[in-house]
Amino acid sequence: MEDKKHIVVLGAGFGGLTFVQKLQHPNARITIIDRQNHHLFQPLLYQVATAGLAMPEIAEPIRTIFAKREDVQVLMDNAEAIDVKNKTVRLTQQTLHYDYLVVGLGMINSYFGNNEWAKHTIGLKSLGEARRIRQRVLHAFERAEAIQDETERKRLMTVVVVGAGPTGVEMAGALSELTKRVFKKDFRSIQPEQSRIVLVEAVDRVLTMYSESSSAKAQASLERMGVELHLGKPVEDISEGRITFGGETIEAESIIWTAGVEANPLVKDLPVEHNRKGQVSVAADCSIPGHPEVFAIGDIVDLTDPNGVRVPGVSPAAMQMGKHIAKILRKELDGQSDTRPAFTYLNKGMMATIGRSAAVAEIGKLKFSGFPAWFLWLAVHLVFLIGFRNRLAVLIQWMFAYIKYRPGARVFEKP
Amino acid sequence: MEDKKHIVVLGAGFGGLTFVQKLQHPNARITIIDRQNHHLFQPLLYQVATAGLAMPEIAEPIRTIFAKREDVQVLMDNAEAIDVKNKTVRLTQQTLHYDYLVVGLGMINSYFGNNEWAKHTIGLKSLGEARRIRQRVLHAFERAEAIQDETERKRLMTVVVVGAGPTGVEMAGALSELTKRVFKKDFRSIQPEQSRIVLVEAVDRVLTMYSESSSAKAQASLERMGVELHLGKPVEDISEGRITFGGETIEAESIIWTAGVEANPLVKDLPVEHNRKGQVSVAADCSIPGHPEVFAIGDIVDLTDPNGVRVPGVSPAAMQMGKHIAKILRKELDGQSDTRPAFTYLNKGMMATIGRSAAVAEIGKLKFSGFPAWFLWLAVHLVFLIGFRNRLAVLIQWMFAYIKYRPGARVFEKP
Repeated sequence: MEDKKHIVVLGAGFGGLTFVQKLQHPNARITIIDRQNHHLFQPLLYQVATAGLAMPEIAEPIRTIFAKREDVQVLMDNAEAIDVKNKTVRLTQQTLHYDYLVVGLGMINSYFGNNEWAKHTIGLKSLGEARRIRQRVLHAFERAEAIQDETERKRLMTVVVVGAGPTGVEMAGALSELTKRVFKKDFRSIQPEQSRIVLVEAVDRVLTMYSESSSAKAQASLERMGVELHLGKPVEDISEGRITFGGETIEAESIIWTAGVEANPLVKDLPVEHNRKGQVSVAADCSIPGHPEVFAIGDIVDLTDPNGVRVPGVSPAAMQMGKHIAKILRKELDGQSDTRPAFTYLNKGMMATIGRSAAVAEIGKLKFSGFPAWFLWLAVHLVFLIGFRNRLAVLIQWMFAYIKYRPGARVFEKP
Repeated sequence: MEDKKHIVVLGAGFGGLTFVQKLQHPNARITIIDRQNHHLFQPLLYQVATAGLAMPEIAEPIRTIFAKREDVQVLMDNAEAIDVKNKTVRLTQQTLHYDYLVVGLGMINSYFGNNEWAKHTIGLKSLGEARRIRQRVLHAFERAEAIQDETERKRLMTVVVVGAGPTGVEMAGALSELTKRVFKKDFRSIQPEQSRIVLVEAVDRVLTMYSESSSAKAQASLERMGVELHLGKPVEDISEGRITFGGETIEAESIIWTAGVEANPLVKDLPVEHNRKGQVSVAADCSIPGHPEVFAIGDIVDLTDPNGVRVPGVSPAAMQMGKHIAKILRKELDGQSDTRPAFTYLNKGMMATIGRSAAVAEIGKLKFSGFPAWFLWLAVHLVFLIGFRNRLAVLIQWMFAYIKYRPGARVFEKP
């Protein structure tokens, strides 16, 4: 037992999870540490926020995933410091020594130096945030129905989404469907179709990582759904229930922040170059230069692969990195010491959904939009989630509710 | 429109909901008011607390239930005062005038005059409380796994349930299965089977409303499952993480309170005799003596029916009362003024489940226990929930997860 190499994995996101799933070796024992007790299927988090899915439907306890892996110890704890010289990780209650360290801590919300904006907005990174968005939006419409004051009603029925990347676009689309369409039959005093869903973005188009034609299609879909687009307008100020951009101020009960991310601050402990977002410049094999026993994977990595492709911060890239370093370590644990291969990113395509039967997808040179892209999105996510959760029945149920505009999770606890 | 009688319903529990479902009349418009946005299927709330079900699976938005009823207005608001002289109900933002009032506000947790105990315990009346119990218990075991101190581990792995009525018995049984059995495969450092589930009760037997033989069977089931029973021991003191009864003090991370309830304080506004628990003495037709336009229904009612049966505070009784007064009002709205019939309670039986394949049920003179009672419990609840939610697939999934000891909702947000 004590001869075994100890591999410590920080973070049970797509990268860390895949790494542990791919590496099982008689000469190794693994400890995986996460702040939460669950792995989160983040691509569908906006569905929890907009009442389409219940929280347990997109999250799985990490220790359940590894229940049969006697070589894996799961700890729910905060990593507080990484000491690469002494090869230790300090947790709140203990310090662990490692032989290999895999850092997959992911990104956190970033406010471009305006940290007080965090108080007045809700991000979308965790189940807790998704629950707060659902609670905030649903409660706002309940309050609007129970009062008479028209100005206050308007404010309560306004949601601002900051940032028009995939998360912001998906949120704005889903919010528009929820408030303008799903709510329509349910309320008597207010006119839910008069709700305002405002999407604000500093750059002059949505989904900047997509081609201009896909951006334009996504934008047209959003406009058709009644989302108010404010492009090319950086946010100037946010206070409680109030946001200013392009000289204009909007009063809104709910402000959702999807505009910026930065690396988990713990990543600063790695003795390597960091970019402006705190991402680390790893070697070609994803290790930290000078520390072949330390790897960084996932969206905290700043890497251009041998093909000249800058690896994007998306879940398929994180999973590919996890698999790549599992392969490297398997060989080294076998006692082979070949030169480590460089990581190469395989772009399987990307897609974003804007609403029922509206989406954009790009796979290699192919571009899809409208119903075909949406159907592709649905199929890929269902297959992913089924593999992940083995909950076919739940997902089929969800799909029908989704198509019929009867989302099943419209309940919240009173704040 | 303005000629229509305005019926105001306070509370969307089993009584209020059934009343509105049963009363649709061209001469009436209905406003139903609840503090929450959802009707809660309370009999399965302990399953949410013990990670078997997700919150939306046992709750349905009230306005969705009545989406097609144009005569029904749903308000999520707090009723703050009832004025039977002026026939008004004051809400936080407006005051409503009624022609008929139906009060079905239900019971709240009661601490026998020790209100500070509320701070140190969690009740089981709302989704929010169920979520807090799940979070508290799951987090405690995660923390136990991440530390080395044996005394602290023991404390974290101890859960005390106060009160051995149906809720307390079901909670203790489900907690024992969760911590001793479900957790067994998942943890590496702690021995989940050494968890302590302590059930404390002032009276000398569990399930006092059942026959002595059913009580004895339930007690034997609990003991077989490793629940520590402390009967005939009233609680003497509770402070943070510490409870004293029968001279003994137990340190426990989680203390769950199911020992006492009292009527919602607003019920005091009804000008009628109240018993020690705040329940109101209604007339035989469930109206308030001297105020035929005001009804009280559900567990806030203190009533002995014409057959000499004291109506119990259970959901079937509340539903029967709702139906009864809907019938009375339908006739009066038709313009008929017959003498109102008295409410008669039809006891369809009662049952409590203690764990997988362990339960007790009493239907008339028939008594069931063990697997038959458990199967009956499952069938009745599935049928109820399916009617309620139309979610057969979800429930079948849940049933299998339940039988296989793999509950599907073991995720929580970090507190």
